[in-house]
Amino acid sequence: MTLTRQDCAALDAADALSPLRDQFDLPDGVIYLDGNSLGALPKATAARVQQVVRDEWGVGLIRSWNIAGWIDLAQRIGNQIATLVGAGENELIVGDSTSVNLYKALSTAIALQKIDAPSRRAIVSERSNFPTDLYIAETLAREHGMTLVLIDADELPAHLNDQLAVLMLTHVNYRTGRMFEMAQVTRDAHPAGALVVWDLAHSAGAVPVDLTAADADFAVGCGYKYLNGGPGAPAFVWAHPRHTARMDREQLRQPLAGWLGHAAPFEFTTDYRPALGIQRFICGTPALLSMSALACGLDVFAHAERFGGLPALRQKSLALTDLFIALVEARCANQGLKLVTPREAAHRGSQASFAHETGGYPIMQALIARGVIGDFRAPDLLRFGFTPLYTRFVDVFDAVEHLRLVLTSGEWREARFNERAAVT
Amino acid sequence: MTLTRQDCAALDAADALSPLRDQFDLPDGVIYLDGNSLGALPKATAARVQQVVRDEWGVGLIRSWNIAGWIDLAQRIGNQIATLVGAGENELIVGDSTSVNLYKALSTAIALQKIDAPSRRAIVSERSNFPTDLYIAETLAREHGMTLVLIDADELPAHLNDQLAVLMLTHVNYRTGRMFEMAQVTRDAHPAGALVVWDLAHSAGAVPVDLTAADADFAVGCGYKYLNGGPGAPAFVWAHPRHTARMDREQLRQPLAGWLGHAAPFEFTTDYRPALGIQRFICGTPALLSMSALACGLDVFAHAERFGGLPALRQKSLALTDLFIALVEARCANQGLKLVTPREAAHRGSQASFAHETGGYPIMQALIARGVIGDFRAPDLLRFGFTPLYTRFVDVFDAVEHLRLVLTSGEWREARFNERAAVT
Repeated sequence: MTLTRQDCAALDAADALSPLRDQFDLPDGVIYLDGNSLGALPKATAARVQQVVRDEWGVGLIRSWNIAGWIDLAQRIGNQIATLVGAGENELIVGDSTSVNLYKALSTAIALQKIDAPSRRAIVSERSNFPTDLYIAETLAREHGMTLVLIDADELPAHLNDQLAVLMLTHVNYRTGRMFEMAQVTRDAHPAGALVVWDLAHSAGAVPVDLTAADADFAVGCGYKYLNGGPGAPAFVWAHPRHTARMDREQLRQPLAGWLGHAAPFEFTTDYRPALGIQRFICGTPALLSMSALACGLDVFAHAERFGGLPALRQKSLALTDLFIALVEARCANQGLKLVTPREAAHRGSQASFAHETGGYPIMQALIARGVIGDFRAPDLLRFGFTPLYTRFVDVFDAVEHLRLVLTSGEWREARFNERAAVT
Repeated sequence: MTLTRQDCAALDAADALSPLRDQFDLPDGVIYLDGNSLGALPKATAARVQQVVRDEWGVGLIRSWNIAGWIDLAQRIGNQIATLVGAGENELIVGDSTSVNLYKALSTAIALQKIDAPSRRAIVSERSNFPTDLYIAETLAREHGMTLVLIDADELPAHLNDQLAVLMLTHVNYRTGRMFEMAQVTRDAHPAGALVVWDLAHSAGAVPVDLTAADADFAVGCGYKYLNGGPGAPAFVWAHPRHTARMDREQLRQPLAGWLGHAAPFEFTTDYRPALGIQRFICGTPALLSMSALACGLDVFAHAERFGGLPALRQKSLALTDLFIALVEARCANQGLKLVTPREAAHRGSQASFAHETGGYPIMQALIARGVIGDFRAPDLLRFGFTPLYTRFVDVFDAVEHLRLVLTSGEWREARFNERAAVT
């Protein structure tokens, strides 16, 4: 028996997290199921960004580096994110893009292995990992005379061997939403002599993560997806303190050794002396307007602590995706859709993806035209993200109803839905 | 004979560029001579950023990649900057920080030389170059088994030899304001077999630059200084089209090969195929709020075209610095100040720096307390930047008068001015 719209409304009425939706400015007529690509706008952000532009920049000018605290904003925001991913204070820092941070983290992991285990030449990752991760790894592998080995997730045990230098995985797969068991994978990889780098792009703010408990080595993540930091929000990078402590002792640097990662940037010395701890992973001057917006996205999570925080959000996220999957399979049966997201809660992030036998691009375009915004991932995936902060159970119901109408009416076959946009 | 305040007011009254000051929101009670560190806020920026936050992000959400043109904003803004530095259309791209872009550009120059002239092992730069340039170069030199050779500017001819792989210079020195003759230096370096990478951090928007006429190889620059893009605004990178054409032919990549620099990012392929031309220098998702603010800074330069553009701005800039130097030397004589900026217009950027026999940090703090904002550069420089877009001749007069009072009254010896702030 599947739920009715009334049942969903009742779920919303009973949802202790429902007040969190008021933290966001959401447009009318839209059901937004793409917060895993670009999170929605928190209500506080516009005013805060305006304050940064008009007061901190316009009036404070250069003085704001001290007076408005710009100089340590990357660390303060890093500490906000740290609480969401199980990192310790001053272990995680914000800045640059996910790709750039991955370059820093993976380079460092490689450098450490070149010292400790120079015979190991393989960087292993998942074939369906997000492309930027693979491109960064491929370039670094080539540079360091190593090999990037791409595997399917179930082939992992066979690759935990004496060739493996670094295992680089994205915790939640951007296509399927399948989630690795971070602690178990790391526990298996370490005795095999590997370091593990995790990309948390689809995890941070979406599922509980505990980097410390998992004993991970490095992690990076994205500010503009579930953290609601705004388009192109700065990303973050974390290194286990055992690695930064060693970098401190041995004066190791990450390759993007920029002036703000120097121990004393305003001494303007000609030689690089890395800052202690994670601060050496800072490179140039951070994009402060974008960074200030990210802080507002994180404030929502601080507020959500009163409602049970990430564990409660996770529970709702799973309820939303469970409902979505059940409704699609019941109401859109025999329409060419096939679930590619794991049904088991423990193996799933905060999204649900369906492959469609025809590819599915125009189906998503037709849905978007109806105000149901998910996204399409080539070659054949309809991807729907569920942000428990602002997604309601009735949204799930209505989205599925639109999907059913798109499929059964055949409206997606109209020419206009087949025109490719630059970003799909 | 030095000018009076009345003379300066007359210069302002006769200044055809004076209406450009109305393009900026400047705080009351401040004479801002630090636009070479962080440019002032253009009047249009706050509303534009608000529009990006509320409408493009808040309402448009993910759709804004297409509808609001986020996807090609980096190139459109790049083309705005291109007109200021003598780059061709689609030859210059915006994103990341100056440090990160320098890493891309210098890595590429090194890679090209490793193919063409592998015996060349020296990267030569100026000892007093901005530290981040030296740190990035030092790291890359180490990585590639090369040597970073730091020299004084006048030693350059002796280093144009068969060891020189890459000459990396900042066009206008951040400390002294001394400007290299870009065309001449490049003309001397090429026959010696070197590639030349220019950092335009203190040039773009401040002095006319013609990368094409100079036949330069690579350039990077900063968005938040004279371009008035806001704190931490994205930077830019340019490569001569002969190099990008070759990279196209030979499928060469820059090291930060991220997904948005892929030829077809939304095909999500596992292997990296670089975009053509300068677009391969894009890495991850750009900080769109910060980038949108940068566009407003550049719109001011488009507007300034009606007033004669950069040549007219340059003329005013030189008049302002000439006046400042003359007034300081006349009115603050025998106060321990010594000009370190070249007196010859052709050898000077848009700033004037004075060393002070005591160091000078508390002198700048006392000036700032009086509302005259320049900055201090260790160990002993008082640095004053002159942005002709918004600086008046009376500002110059008043700033010197404050400096005279600070010096002659001895107020800078007060304890409060000696306390070091995080950013000096």
